[in-house]
Amino acid sequence: MNNNDEKLEQLRHSCAHLLAAAVLELYPDAKRTIGPSIENGFYYDFDFGDIKVSDDDLIRIEQKMREVVKSWKGFEREEISVDEARKRFVDNPYKLELIEEFSKDGQTLSIYKSGDFSDLCRGGHSDNPQKDLIAFKLLSLAGAYWRGNEKNKMLTRIYGTAFETKKELDEYLAKQEEAKKRDHRKLGRELDLFVFSDLVGKGLPMFTPRGTILRELLNDYSQKLRLQKGFQRVWTPHITKNDLYKVSGHWDKFGDELFLVKSQESTDQMVMKPMNCPHHQQIYAGRPHSYKELPIKYMETTTDYRDEKAGELNGLSRVRSVTQDDSHTFCTPEQIEDVYSEMIGIVKTFYETVHMPLKARLSFRDPSHPEKYLGEPELWDKAQSILLEIAKKHELDYYMVEGEAAFYGPKIDFMGIDAIGRQWQVATPQLDFVQPERFGLKYTDADGTEKTPVMIHFALMGSIERFLSVYIEHTAGVFPVWLAPVQVTVIPIADRHAEYAEKVAEELRLENVRVEVDSRSESMQSKIRLAQTQKVPYMLVVGDKEIEAQSVAVRTRSGENGGEQSVSEFKDLIINEIKEKK
Amino acid sequence: MNNNDEKLEQLRHSCAHLLAAAVLELYPDAKRTIGPSIENGFYYDFDFGDIKVSDDDLIRIEQKMREVVKSWKGFEREEISVDEARKRFVDNPYKLELIEEFSKDGQTLSIYKSGDFSDLCRGGHSDNPQKDLIAFKLLSLAGAYWRGNEKNKMLTRIYGTAFETKKELDEYLAKQEEAKKRDHRKLGRELDLFVFSDLVGKGLPMFTPRGTILRELLNDYSQKLRLQKGFQRVWTPHITKNDLYKVSGHWDKFGDELFLVKSQESTDQMVMKPMNCPHHQQIYAGRPHSYKELPIKYMETTTDYRDEKAGELNGLSRVRSVTQDDSHTFCTPEQIEDVYSEMIGIVKTFYETVHMPLKARLSFRDPSHPEKYLGEPELWDKAQSILLEIAKKHELDYYMVEGEAAFYGPKIDFMGIDAIGRQWQVATPQLDFVQPERFGLKYTDADGTEKTPVMIHFALMGSIERFLSVYIEHTAGVFPVWLAPVQVTVIPIADRHAEYAEKVAEELRLENVRVEVDSRSESMQSKIRLAQTQKVPYMLVVGDKEIEAQSVAVRTRSGENGGEQSVSEFKDLIINEIKEKK
Repeated sequence: MNNNDEKLEQLRHSCAHLLAAAVLELYPDAKRTIGPSIENGFYYDFDFGDIKVSDDDLIRIEQKMREVVKSWKGFEREEISVDEARKRFVDNPYKLELIEEFSKDGQTLSIYKSGDFSDLCRGGHSDNPQKDLIAFKLLSLAGAYWRGNEKNKMLTRIYGTAFETKKELDEYLAKQEEAKKRDHRKLGRELDLFVFSDLVGKGLPMFTPRGTILRELLNDYSQKLRLQKGFQRVWTPHITKNDLYKVSGHWDKFGDELFLVKSQESTDQMVMKPMNCPHHQQIYAGRPHSYKELPIKYMETTTDYRDEKAGELNGLSRVRSVTQDDSHTFCTPEQIEDVYSEMIGIVKTFYETVHMPLKARLSFRDPSHPEKYLGEPELWDKAQSILLEIAKKHELDYYMVEGEAAFYGPKIDFMGIDAIGRQWQVATPQLDFVQPERFGLKYTDADGTEKTPVMIHFALMGSIERFLSVYIEHTAGVFPVWLAPVQVTVIPIADRHAEYAEKVAEELRLENVRVEVDSRSESMQSKIRLAQTQKVPYMLVVGDKEIEAQSVAVRTRSGENGGEQSVSEFKDLIINEIKEKK
Repeated sequence: MNNNDEKLEQLRHSCAHLLAAAVLELYPDAKRTIGPSIENGFYYDFDFGDIKVSDDDLIRIEQKMREVVKSWKGFEREEISVDEARKRFVDNPYKLELIEEFSKDGQTLSIYKSGDFSDLCRGGHSDNPQKDLIAFKLLSLAGAYWRGNEKNKMLTRIYGTAFETKKELDEYLAKQEEAKKRDHRKLGRELDLFVFSDLVGKGLPMFTPRGTILRELLNDYSQKLRLQKGFQRVWTPHITKNDLYKVSGHWDKFGDELFLVKSQESTDQMVMKPMNCPHHQQIYAGRPHSYKELPIKYMETTTDYRDEKAGELNGLSRVRSVTQDDSHTFCTPEQIEDVYSEMIGIVKTFYETVHMPLKARLSFRDPSHPEKYLGEPELWDKAQSILLEIAKKHELDYYMVEGEAAFYGPKIDFMGIDAIGRQWQVATPQLDFVQPERFGLKYTDADGTEKTPVMIHFALMGSIERFLSVYIEHTAGVFPVWLAPVQVTVIPIADRHAEYAEKVAEELRLENVRVEVDSRSESMQSKIRLAQTQKVPYMLVVGDKEIEAQSVAVRTRSGENGGEQSVSEFKDLIINEIKEKK
C-alpha cells in the first residue's frame, strides 16, 4: 500500500466515524457495531431496532454528517481498561461482544474521540477532519448479518464513499452511475436471462431459454477452442465421498467450505464437489498410460458447489452453483512449456473474440510462508521460472504477486478489463506438481520406468456464472450478433403482412438464425421500441412494399436504418456475422 | 399371477430351502437368514462366519442339493409358539430377529419341514420336491447386507435358478450366457467407457473420453429431435431448499429417498434434486405468460441424485447420479393431444434409430387406492382417455396397467425390447395436472382470465446411465458408426507408411470423423485384432500399394474385407453413414 492509498483509507475510515456520529444524533436508540473502510469507500453497520431506515433517510444523515464534521478538529486517542470500556458501552451488546474478544487477546483498548463522538477503534484517521472530510457521499443501504453469519441478527449497513477532492468523487460517482446502468442483475431481469426463486434458495440462479443460449454458446466456443487442440470431454458426478479430498489435500484446507451430503441409506461421508481435479485424476487412474499418450487432456464443463455465506451472495457474481469450463491436462515435465503455451494462445483468442483486453498476474508462492504450500520448494522455483518465461515469450502485459499461488502450484491469473475499466479475474491455467503425486498417478516412460505426470488445471472463463456477470456488464447487454439470444425480430406492419413475416423467419431459421416474429396488434413503432429494449441486433420490418420486392427493411438496435435488402442479401450478411463471431 | 407363475415360484422357493439344507450339511456353523424366490430364480443369504466360500464351492453345494432332495417327499407344516421358535433357532441371531418381528405382528409362526431340514417359513412350496426339483442350478455368489442395510453385517448371497423342465433351464442358461457376454460392466471396462473409484464412491460412475462421446452423441440426438419441435434449453442447479419439494408434494412422498445437503454457512435445509420439474416450474413462474406463448417447452439434460441403497447399485443400471434428458412442456388443456402426439412421434423416431422395438405401457391410476394420487378423479379419467386415444391413433403396441401412474398424473411408459428379448422401461411422457396448480402457475387466456397450464414431463432416454447400460448390452458394444467412440483406425503396415497413415487420418478428421492411427511397432494382424476387440467399425490398412494409389484397404470389425478404396471414396462412404445414423 502506498502513501496515497493509506491516506485515502484513513479518510474513509474517518468518514465511517462521522457516519456513526450523525446516525446517533438522529437515532439516539440505534446501536452502532463496526465501520471499516473498504475498497472504494466505507460502511457502518447499525442495529436500528424497530425503526425502518430507507434510502430517503440517507440524505438527512449525510446533511447531519456535514453539520457534525464542522466541530471535528482531530481524533484524540485514549487508552482505557476493559472494565472502563464495558461501562462506556454498557448499552451496546455488539460493542460488548467485541470488548470481550479484544480483552481475551490481551490487547489494550483504545477509544478515539472527535467532537462529541467517541468510538472503540484501533486508529488510523485523518489528521484534520474539518478540512479533509469534504468529498463524501452516502450511497446505499443493505442488510448485513452481524459478523457475516446468517444465524445472527440482520443489521442495517450504510455504504458511503469518500475521496480527497470533489473532482475525484464526481468521477467515481459518474463511473458508478454507468456501472449501475450495466448492473447484470437489472439486465438479467430486463433481458429475461435468469431468475432466482425463494423456494430454491439464495445463490442458485436458474437460466431461462435466453440466458441458457448465452451460457451454452460461450461454453461451446470455449470447448471448441480446446477440442481443436486435442482436449477430450469427460463426465463426472457432482458428489463424492470426502475420502477423495482427504487424499487430494483439499479436505484439510477447505473442508469447512463444502456442502456436506448426507445419505439416509448409507454411511458414506459425502460432499458436493467444489472443484473437478480429483475426479478427473480418478479417470486418469482408471487404466495404465504410456508416455506416448501424453499429453492427455480432459475437459468438462460441470457445476461445482461452494458453501458461500448468504451475505456474500450477489447476482451471478457470487453464487453457490459455480459452473466451470474446466480441464485438466496430464503431461511430462518436458511438455509443460508447450502445453502451457498452447493454453495461453487459447486464452488470447477467446478474450480477443469477446473484446476484453487482458493483464496477466503471475501468482507465485509467498517464500516467507512455505507452510502454506504443498510440494518441494525447488519444484516451485522451477515452475515459476517456466511461467515467467512463457509470459515474456507471449508478450503478456504481466505483473508478479507473491502469495497468490494455489497450495499445489503457481499459476497465471488473467485479469480481463471491462468496458468501464474494471478488472476481473478470468482464465487461470495452474501448474500442479502435488496432486498427481498424492493420487499416485503414473505413466510408463520410454525407458520402462514409472513416472508421475504433471497436471495443468485450465478453465477459460472459470466460473461461467461469474463470467456472465462480467460479460453482461461489459457489453451492457448489447451482445454481439453471434451471442444474442434473439438475433432478428421480424415486424409485420399490419396483420396482412404476418404470413410473409413468418416466411422470412422460417427462411432464416433454416440457417439456424434465432428469429422471432412480433405479430402483436401493436404499432410498428412500439414493436421496434420493444426489440430495441430487448437489444435484438436486427429488426426486419415488412409491409406491402417488401412483399412486392421479396425484401426486408432492416433496422438495427442502435437505431440505424440498414435500408431495404433482399432476404437472401440479409441472410448472407447475418450468417457471415455469426460465423465471424461479430 | 397365473397358475404357471405360481407353480414356478413355489418350485424356486422350494429350491431355496434345498439350498439352505445343503449348505448346513456342508457348513454346520453357517447361519442361514432368508431365502425367497425372485424373478428368474431364487437366492438364500448366509453368514458363513470366517469361512470363505467361492464359486468353486457352488458345484459341491449343488451336488449336495441333488443328494439331499432324494429324501424330500414333501413339505410338512408345523405351527409353533414364539417361545418354541426362539428355542429352535437359539443359535441364529438372524432368525431370532425375524421371530421377534413376526411375533409383534401377532402372527402364528410356521415351520416347514422336508427331509431332515426345517425352516421358519410362511409356506408356498412344491408338492413333490423329490420329483419336481430336477432342473435347477446355482449361478453365483454376491455380498449382501443383512436386510439390505449397509450398516448391517455383510452376508453371502447364493443365487440359483430353477425351471420345471431341463429344456427350459438350458434355454434360460443359454440366454444368460449371451447376456453375460454383453454385460455392460464388462464391456464398459474392455471398451474403456466408464470407471468407478472407491474414493468417489459407489453408484457414481465417471465417464472416460470414449464413454463421454457416446453419452453426448445420444443426448445431442435426443435434444436435436426436440429442438426441431420448439423445445428450448434451460439450466437449473443440482440443489434446492427442501421448501421446493414441500410445495410440489414430493417431500411427503419421497423425502427419505433424498440426499440431504448440509450447509455449514447457512441454516437453509437443502437437498439434491431427484427430479427437475419443480425447478423448471420456477423458471416458468419467473415472468407472466400469455396463452399465445403456449406451448412453452423447456428442456434440460441434467443430473439428479437419488439415495439408492448400496446393495441395489449395479454398474450403470442403478446409480446414484442419474442424468435425465428431461423436458417439461406447459400447455393449455386443448393442446394436450397435439403436444403429446408430437412426443410420441419423437419417441418412435429415436427408438427406430437405435433399433429397439417398443411396447407402450399405459400407466394409469389404481382406482381402488385414490389416496395414492393427487388431483381430482375426473381430471384423471379425462387424461387417461386422452392417452388411450393417442395410443390407438399412433398404432402403438400397448397394454394398460392400473397402479403404475405417477402420483401427479397418468403416463405412457415405453418399454424398449433389446436384442436378446429383454424389456426395459425407457421414454415416459407424463401428464401432470397437479404440480402447476400447487405452484400457482398461470397464463392469461384470450378472454383475459388467468388459468393454470397443464405440464407434460418428457424424457426420451430417461436416465442416460440406465439407457447406456441397456444400449451397450443391446448392441454388445458394437455401436453403429455414428456412435462409435473411435470410428476408424488407420493401420500403417510398416514404419515407412506412418506418414501416409497420418495424412489419411487428418483428411478424415477434417470431416469430424473420429480417427486413430495405430503406429505401434506391432504386426498388422495384431493391430487389426486390437481394433476388432475395440469394436472399431473400420480399419484402413495402408502400405506401399495404397500409397502408390492414394487409397486405403478397408477392413470391418466383423472381419469383412471392404477391398481397396480411394480415400475420397471411403470418406464419402463414412460421412454418409454418420449422417444417416447408421
